[in-house]
This record gives sequence, C-alpha cells and structure tokens, in this order.
Amino acid sequence: MLEQIKNRRSIRKYLEKPVDDDKIIQLLESARLAPSGSNTQPWHFIIVKSEEIRQKLVEVSNNQKWMLSAPVFIVCVADIRSRITDNIEISLNENSPQLELKQIIRDTSIAIEHIVLEANNLGLGACWVAWFIQEEIRPILNIPSDKFVVCILTLGYASESPKDRPRKKIEEIIHRESW
Amino acid sequence: MLEQIKNRRSIRKYLEKPVDDDKIIQLLESARLAPSGSNTQPWHFIIVKSEEIRQKLVEVSNNQKWMLSAPVFIVCVADIRSRITDNIEISLNENSPQLELKQIIRDTSIAIEHIVLEANNLGLGACWVAWFIQEEIRPILNIPSDKFVVCILTLGYASESPKDRPRKKIEEIIHRESW
Repeated sequence: MLEQIKNRRSIRKYLEKPVDDDKIIQLLESARLAPSGSNTQPWHFIIVKSEEIRQKLVEVSNNQKWMLSAPVFIVCVADIRSRITDNIEISLNENSPQLELKQIIRDTSIAIEHIVLEANNLGLGACWVAWFIQEEIRPILNIPSDKFVVCILTLGYASESPKDRPRKKIEEIIHRESW
Repeated sequence: MLEQIKNRRSIRKYLEKPVDDDKIIQLLESARLAPSGSNTQPWHFIIVKSEEIRQKLVEVSNNQKWMLSAPVFIVCVADIRSRITDNIEISLNENSPQLELKQIIRDTSIAIEHIVLEANNLGLGACWVAWFIQEEIRPILNIPSDKFVVCILTLGYASESPKDRPRKKIEEIIHRESW
C-alpha cells in the first residue's frame, strides 16, 4: 500500500485512449465503500465524458486547458441533505458556515481519495481540481444549490510521469503527546 | 487495492498489544505523501499514548468509553496558516465560514484516510472519531485556536471483526453527464 501511495502522482497530461466503463464503475465502487460520519454517505459522482460539458467545466476552472486532455471527468458532490433533513431552503457557497458542510466535505474527500488510489492501482491517472466557485459550476450540471461540489477529478491514462513534489519532513508534521 | 478497501472496517475494540513506533511512523509517512491543494500540506499529527491524556480526549468525545481500548490515538489537525499567512488573529470553531477552512479539512481528510488504509494494510485497525468540539479538545493538547482538529484516529490491533455496514447502491450515487 505504501508503495502505491509513494508512486501516486497528480496527472495533468493524458493519452487519447478512452477509459472502459467497467473500470470507472470499479473506481466508484471503491468510493461507495468509504467510511463516513454516522454512515451518512453524503457523496454523489457525476461521470462526464461529453466534450462540450467538459469544455464548460474547464472554463469555470480558471480555464486550465490541460484538463481537457482527460477523457473523463468525475464531478464529486457532497449533499448536505444527508445531515439536514428538515425542509428548510439551503444555498451553499464558499463561505457557508455550517458544521454539516464541513462534515460532508470531510466524508466526500475520503471517498474521492479512494477513487484516486484505486485509479493508480488500475494503471490510470487522476488529478483533484477544485479551482472553481459553486455558483458557476453547479448550473452546468444542474446541481441543486443545497449540494457542494468538492472537486472535479480528471481521469484517464497518463501521458506524463511527473517527479515527486517536495514534502515537509516527517518531523515537521509529527508531535508527541501535545502540540 | 479494492480488496483492501472492501475489507476495511472501523474498529472500536482493540487488543492490549502496543503498536511499534516504526509502524506508527510508516502510517504517518503515508499521510505525508498525500496530495493537497497547491501542495500546501496543512496537516499535523499528534501521537498520544499517555493513558491520562487519552482519558481526557475520551471525555470530550462524548465519553465514548470504547475509545480507551485503543493504545494509540492520532489527533489529526488542520492548520489554516498553510493558506492564510497574514498576521491576523484567527479562532476557528464548528461554525467558522472561511473557504480556507474547508480546503484544509478536505486536504487533511485525504491524508487521514491514507493512514486508515495503510493501517489496514499493516494488520492494524483504526476508527475516525469526530464527535467533539474544538473549544474543548484543543486545550487538552495545547493546540492553538487557529488550528482545527479534524479527527481523533484510534489505532491498535483489532479484537473484533465487524460485519460490513450497509451502503447505498451504486445507482443511487452515480449520475451521468448531469445531476
């Protein structure tokens, strides 16, 4: 496992080769089995292959052109209704204060990283992209305003082998018994 | 990988057997290598073995007594200073609205799940616990108020083999091309 974690890279350049649907389903199966607070499973995944829609998603992602080389985008969405069930209107954005939003971002992030690690395991590459705002991305996919888009995951076969990025030393992030 | 993800369980009952320090370091190495937005690496990990401190952490975690059977707690902390570098005072709590807090919770959650999967891989068990409030947990470990405790990870050798918890069907969480 640690070897696979060591070898994982964020991939920003993809081959034109498509990704078989059964592989995509296997990735989402790994997300489906992720743990979540009180087993609330707040995650939804929108598989986007359409070039037209991917183009629109790139535009709201600060026009990061490299994204378009990925044949598949998985748009990863957290649903606050998994925790707030009364019928009040909720419109989420970058500055929403709710604890429940923090909880569903946490849980959906766990599931997304399962996809990333499993993609790596299947010989695929992926990259987390979260440089967009809710108000712009949601309308493209008809996502209701009580959902929060956690990331676009670009997915495909890598056509680059990036070096490892620098990391803090282990001593910088470990504490013992107290901060 | 998918097999390991399938076999992972949240463990709430542990053997008295201690966990070797080199295993704990290997777990934190898997966290250290996690991806994060702009490679900001907002995570810190406090290894707690002291029974006295673990007891205090259990008390602020709604007194979930089962936790104490775990010989090690890893308290996982997100640091907003990885994204906000001006010298303004920041005090984070459950209802803080900052986008940066959402980003560091996301990234720290990725790193924490690396630990959980790697623990499973090493024959260890773990459980995410996040049923506490910032104001009560931070003083126990002298954590400054501009940090946010994402979870306590209980860690040890499992003395239970829980069945799998129910999950939504894959069709309930997958969408194609649009919500």
